[in-house]
Amino acid sequence: MKIVLIGSGNVATQLGLALYRKNFNIVQIYSRTKVSASLLADRLHTSYVTDIKKITTEADLLIFSVKDSAIESILKKMPLGQGLYVHTAGSVPMDIFTGYVQRYGVFYPLQTFSKNKALSFEQIPILLESYNPNDEQLLYSVAEKLSKKVNFISSVSRKHIHLSAVFACNFTNHMYTLAADILEKQGIDWSLLLPLIEETLEKVKIIPPKDAQTGPAIRYDKKVMQSHLQLLDEKIQRDIYKKISLSIHQHATSNSKHD
Amino acid sequence: MKIVLIGSGNVATQLGLALYRKNFNIVQIYSRTKVSASLLADRLHTSYVTDIKKITTEADLLIFSVKDSAIESILKKMPLGQGLYVHTAGSVPMDIFTGYVQRYGVFYPLQTFSKNKALSFEQIPILLESYNPNDEQLLYSVAEKLSKKVNFISSVSRKHIHLSAVFACNFTNHMYTLAADILEKQGIDWSLLLPLIEETLEKVKIIPPKDAQTGPAIRYDKKVMQSHLQLLDEKIQRDIYKKISLSIHQHATSNSKHD
Repeated sequence: MKIVLIGSGNVATQLGLALYRKNFNIVQIYSRTKVSASLLADRLHTSYVTDIKKITTEADLLIFSVKDSAIESILKKMPLGQGLYVHTAGSVPMDIFTGYVQRYGVFYPLQTFSKNKALSFEQIPILLESYNPNDEQLLYSVAEKLSKKVNFISSVSRKHIHLSAVFACNFTNHMYTLAADILEKQGIDWSLLLPLIEETLEKVKIIPPKDAQTGPAIRYDKKVMQSHLQLLDEKIQRDIYKKISLSIHQHATSNSKHD
Repeated sequence: MKIVLIGSGNVATQLGLALYRKNFNIVQIYSRTKVSASLLADRLHTSYVTDIKKITTEADLLIFSVKDSAIESILKKMPLGQGLYVHTAGSVPMDIFTGYVQRYGVFYPLQTFSKNKALSFEQIPILLESYNPNDEQLLYSVAEKLSKKVNFISSVSRKHIHLSAVFACNFTNHMYTLAADILEKQGIDWSLLLPLIEETLEKVKIIPPKDAQTGPAIRYDKKVMQSHLQLLDEKIQRDIYKKISLSIHQHATSNSKHD
């Protein structure tokens, strides 16, 4: 099976490396950025093109790992073949391929990727979608070599999953950033918080997160919350503090109503 | 050394168990709630009182692990002795004890505790403060038996650390809750997200969180953000989504300005 990778960013890099480790045949990388295209091609021991017209039409599987808005603009310009065309985006419906190719689908790994942080794919959920039922087996056979957690999911479900991932990953990471900012201003290394954030995660492996909630907001301890707000210099930090605290409080209230 | 525990909630329970495991002599539990007082006394093989007047004055160390607002109201009513009085609260200044006793301080374990989730104290930072320099050694000797990470920290620094912990733990947990809510409505088990939130944590062990940020907000991908907002039923969820996304964007912008 000949695979083409379209893109050379975080997802393309880690997915490419995972495929390479499992001996898949990656025949070409396309990226408009020469530096990152050549870097990834080196790591995957393959060749690259930066000219969209030179994307091969002789591939069995073409994987688009580019930013959402680039998928369609690349489709419009590239030469199209008979292979299976898939993208890796959480929020882009499968039917973005409609009218361009006959065989298409989605190959969405539910994970946060960085170019230079290696990770194992084994536990990463890979969420698949295929326009033609006939192509499900091909997609599945690739995914199951990488991961133990492979599922077929509709575009609508995937969009909700992607939204939940924004909260669980992107917004969580920003909570870490805001916490680090506060400590940095006090000259304290943010690694002081690592045992706390590890335990925060350990707890929700065994208790649903709404039952694991602790802190001043769930007690609705106005005195503590007020004193915290006074320590925050920027309005946006105070807005975030207030909105999340209110939401925690509302969840606590609606939980106890149901008890 | 005779230790009295005032309180029988999450912190009192886990701190009591940690002290008990290290063979400290816990002579008495006080809690106004008989059920939880007797439960904790059973687990620590000691006795309890629910009458505040019966708190012993013959203790060397009295640890207040109660909600912030209860500390002073208990102090006003309890019989006071010559021991060292400390509380475990992140945001309460040490001087809450001023005028009540001569020897006082703070014993703040920086962690999130649940009554029924056991955890090791070894990696938990314990942040100490002592009014009398003479009592520093006593506090330190207790803390170092429990943890490898013991520091003396001022009330002002502790308050900032507590605020950072609210973001890193309480607010992070609420991001998990909101993510779980979204999946629950789709009939999807929230454990699908566990590999993602584990990797989100693994990344910030090696990369500062502001450099680990991914997702639509850092790219400021308005189309994705708009489509996410349409999936959120409640205004407060949308407010949280918008404020955090804006804050992520502002951090990204100020970072690149400094590059």
